[in-house]
Amino acid sequence: MPIHKLRIIPLGGLGEVGMNMMALEYADDIIIIDAGFMFPREDMPGIGMLIPDVEYLRQKRANVKGIVITHGHLDHIGALPYILPDFNVPIYATKFTKELITNELKRGGVKNKANLRRVNPGSRIKIGKFNIDFFRVCHSIPDAMGLIIHTPIGIVVHSGDFKIDQNPILGKPTDLSSLAKLGTKGTLLLFSDSTYAELPGHTPSEQVVSVTLEHIIAEAPGRIIITTFSSLVSRVQQVINVAANHNRRVFITSRSIESTIKAALKTGYLNIPDGILCHLDEFKKLPNKQIVVLTSGTQGEPTSALVRIANREHKQIKIIPDDTVVISATPIPGNERLVSKTIDRLFRQGANVIYSKLAQVHVHGHGGQEELKLLLNLVQPKFFVPVHGEYRHLSLHAKLARSLNMPKSNIFVIEDGDILELGPEEGKVIDKIHMAEICINGSKTEKIDNSILRERKSLSKDGIVMVTLVVDATGNRLLEKPIIINRGLISSEENRSLMEEIQKIVVAVFNSSENISSGDKRTIQLRHRNLEGKVKDSLARFLYKNTHRRPVIVPVIIGMKKSRSHISPLDKSKGV
Amino acid sequence: MPIHKLRIIPLGGLGEVGMNMMALEYADDIIIIDAGFMFPREDMPGIGMLIPDVEYLRQKRANVKGIVITHGHLDHIGALPYILPDFNVPIYATKFTKELITNELKRGGVKNKANLRRVNPGSRIKIGKFNIDFFRVCHSIPDAMGLIIHTPIGIVVHSGDFKIDQNPILGKPTDLSSLAKLGTKGTLLLFSDSTYAELPGHTPSEQVVSVTLEHIIAEAPGRIIITTFSSLVSRVQQVINVAANHNRRVFITSRSIESTIKAALKTGYLNIPDGILCHLDEFKKLPNKQIVVLTSGTQGEPTSALVRIANREHKQIKIIPDDTVVISATPIPGNERLVSKTIDRLFRQGANVIYSKLAQVHVHGHGGQEELKLLLNLVQPKFFVPVHGEYRHLSLHAKLARSLNMPKSNIFVIEDGDILELGPEEGKVIDKIHMAEICINGSKTEKIDNSILRERKSLSKDGIVMVTLVVDATGNRLLEKPIIINRGLISSEENRSLMEEIQKIVVAVFNSSENISSGDKRTIQLRHRNLEGKVKDSLARFLYKNTHRRPVIVPVIIGMKKSRSHISPLDKSKGV
Repeated sequence: MPIHKLRIIPLGGLGEVGMNMMALEYADDIIIIDAGFMFPREDMPGIGMLIPDVEYLRQKRANVKGIVITHGHLDHIGALPYILPDFNVPIYATKFTKELITNELKRGGVKNKANLRRVNPGSRIKIGKFNIDFFRVCHSIPDAMGLIIHTPIGIVVHSGDFKIDQNPILGKPTDLSSLAKLGTKGTLLLFSDSTYAELPGHTPSEQVVSVTLEHIIAEAPGRIIITTFSSLVSRVQQVINVAANHNRRVFITSRSIESTIKAALKTGYLNIPDGILCHLDEFKKLPNKQIVVLTSGTQGEPTSALVRIANREHKQIKIIPDDTVVISATPIPGNERLVSKTIDRLFRQGANVIYSKLAQVHVHGHGGQEELKLLLNLVQPKFFVPVHGEYRHLSLHAKLARSLNMPKSNIFVIEDGDILELGPEEGKVIDKIHMAEICINGSKTEKIDNSILRERKSLSKDGIVMVTLVVDATGNRLLEKPIIINRGLISSEENRSLMEEIQKIVVAVFNSSENISSGDKRTIQLRHRNLEGKVKDSLARFLYKNTHRRPVIVPVIIGMKKSRSHISPLDKSKGV
Repeated sequence: MPIHKLRIIPLGGLGEVGMNMMALEYADDIIIIDAGFMFPREDMPGIGMLIPDVEYLRQKRANVKGIVITHGHLDHIGALPYILPDFNVPIYATKFTKELITNELKRGGVKNKANLRRVNPGSRIKIGKFNIDFFRVCHSIPDAMGLIIHTPIGIVVHSGDFKIDQNPILGKPTDLSSLAKLGTKGTLLLFSDSTYAELPGHTPSEQVVSVTLEHIIAEAPGRIIITTFSSLVSRVQQVINVAANHNRRVFITSRSIESTIKAALKTGYLNIPDGILCHLDEFKKLPNKQIVVLTSGTQGEPTSALVRIANREHKQIKIIPDDTVVISATPIPGNERLVSKTIDRLFRQGANVIYSKLAQVHVHGHGGQEELKLLLNLVQPKFFVPVHGEYRHLSLHAKLARSLNMPKSNIFVIEDGDILELGPEEGKVIDKIHMAEICINGSKTEKIDNSILRERKSLSKDGIVMVTLVVDATGNRLLEKPIIINRGLISSEENRSLMEEIQKIVVAVFNSSENISSGDKRTIQLRHRNLEGKVKDSLARFLYKNTHRRPVIVPVIIGMKKSRSHISPLDKSKGV
């Protein structure tokens, strides 16, 4: 039997955070680890969710044998509805994760039954030549797993997203002993979560938040309105516990939290004492000191309940004196401004707002530098590939590994699309796949076209001016006054006189262009093309001089035929 | 003599940070404190700098007697070039600030000589019925001042932007003794900087950065490339000192830093030992261990030297192994992503990048909660107005004052445009001015038109489709195939077939609309208007169904007259 090498192909989450996906390939077997989506960047106007480009896998469709999911966050499962049509293979996940995947497939409109298989911590599954053991990790969602993958050339450990919370609110601590055992056996490769590689020290335990919440609720003179991530079930549990301790009842106004609670109750990951939750009619009658409202809106999402409360647009809840609002979360990079504006509006209405800058109302779900080093020391891998992070996080994680005396040549800082080929003794990036940017538009996926994005950006900057000219069949005579239309350039009050000036300029450009005698189609079209260029240039100059703006300028020349039959339109670049 | 009240009119910096400006009015005298500009928010595509709306002051132009500037940051002086034409009154500033204002007026194209008057810490000036003493404060720029304003109804203290650094790198600590003396006299009102009211404790001294820089430079195996805010002269001084200590020379690649250095040298706020700075030709010959490069680019500005270095587009400097890059700054809210991308790119090229998350390479220029409380306790004002902050910062600063037992009724959390009227015993917000959003476009100022911004936003989301129809004089006959043009909607490959379908739909809409018999202008126009609506609706439905997008749709109907003489265009809402 020929000795094959192991190929590692990151398709998401290395070099840019957001969507996590990776393929491991050995001979004719490929397994996929996670399949998430990400929110578009600010420089992608009009773009929906982004998902990984799986073209490489599509070329080897028959070899793809299974999908392993580490946990149920959308950046790990959100792309499943869109890749399943191509790879309808078994999906392995723990019970809570399985619930969330089922919801997500339903939401994504996947009609065919997916082949979802439940695994547990300690389970072993076999996919092709890969044998995979699952081990428990702590993260900001229940039932998160790491993977111990036995391959023909050695053991590969994947940390999943993790932190080392010795005292979690739900479930048990990260299973370090399974990993410690590996250290002695010799592990070939470690993939480890780099998300918080920038942070010195150790991420605090979820318990810290309980202490803060207890303190806040004890002091609060009136209602408490609290928001957190819907999938952060341990936080929901803490809110319920603290409310119960202080004889308060919990009113939930968030469909996403309700849906997660349902999944958590079904799988035994949430414990709600009888009589704690209250319905709208009860909520209306309760004294303020007996109320906790649990709501969505951690990221200042415009349609979330918290933002509607902040804008006085929520039907049931208006801010009243002595309300305390707790934002038990931190903004995801890019959302800072939306969150700040929400906080400002809540303060403006008289609420006392408590957020992560003011008190420890949130701890994050990823390990800091000391935890990352602990994992490296426990597993003692021969090779190391930092995963889940932007390039700086991967680099810093690699630097941590070097500080533990790992040789530089055994650490691979690779990015999405790199193909790393690993033998028992050495590894090498052998190729780089071109990764297209794929987005979801409605229920379809499409490639992002950068020229379209550029057009949208120029349109958004200074708007657009369209100039329509109707000329006769000879091309020499203007039949109508030029029609000038603008969108997004200048306000309507200044509009009229400027538009009249533009008309004059266009007429002058037309009149100054040489007449043609030949009436053949080609000559007329050339003249039109030439005229378009001149109109663009003159208008661009005039508009920059007069408005200091550079709008998109679109000239359209309509040449009437003598017979008034159909003509072919002239904007070949974009029109028909 | 009638007893007047003191009016406080914030025109910038209260409720939204960025541009700071305030007016104090007593009887016929108005003074302006600061006149800054701000960068546009992300939701303002195509908008240049924003400046305060000074319409209130313009109505009382004759009463405006002087402008007092606390320090030279652009959010305190940047609007001067644009308001001076309206208020050419004396401007009072310290010597370094005066240099920066002179530069700014030149940059803003102000040709008339401004009436700039120099003041010093300890100076007293008289403007109308206001007597103003200047006192020294520490901030992230040299020569920053606070104000003690003697008004007919009592003393008003303005903190300016400040922190309490007991051991600053440049100049002396904040002059607390002048303020302590006031406490015993009775101060009517305190305005105090709220920028860091969220932060518990005390902002560290600039000295802390020196310690970090010493450490970094001692360890660095090769060149050091360091970026900081150009106006942060004390940081430039530290870089120079640390370089000198380690026998390194400093090469500067930033016009803005060079310009500030010039102003700082001229005013004695920078001390550069001979032979430290080096020119390009020397820089090229020096061993790497003897090089420090000082550059702009703290905010990831696309044209800055650091970003060009990160993109391998800088002429003189390419990243080489063993380079250490130090970002001695923090991202201004909104710039996080640009900064992160720059860091990622530097790491990708092999640099070791050190930034504020990893080491204390920056301390900010505003006081934390303990400093704010210290100021309140020293000044012991009767009334308090928190300034310089978004609404949450003002609210939290007010909360701090209440924690010091200041009565709630004596604390005014006001926002830009509120007119606070203060007597010796009580204060009240008597009015709210409507504040327009004013931006600078080229060298002109203009009001921001929100409908234009909305148009730009919809254009940027899904682009635009223009449909031009040429019809005969009766309005009943289509003379040409509809001309369809799109920008920013779909890529050119998918374009053709979609555009053909659109043509068919438009023709069908036209054909299905009822013919009219009367040929009078009004009837034809009505028919056109009606047709436009139908085209819009049908296309919107079709495009959403087929592309899941909602572009702006602009139908243009050109009605040819029999005589082929001029017609009036039909898009009345926007065109001529």
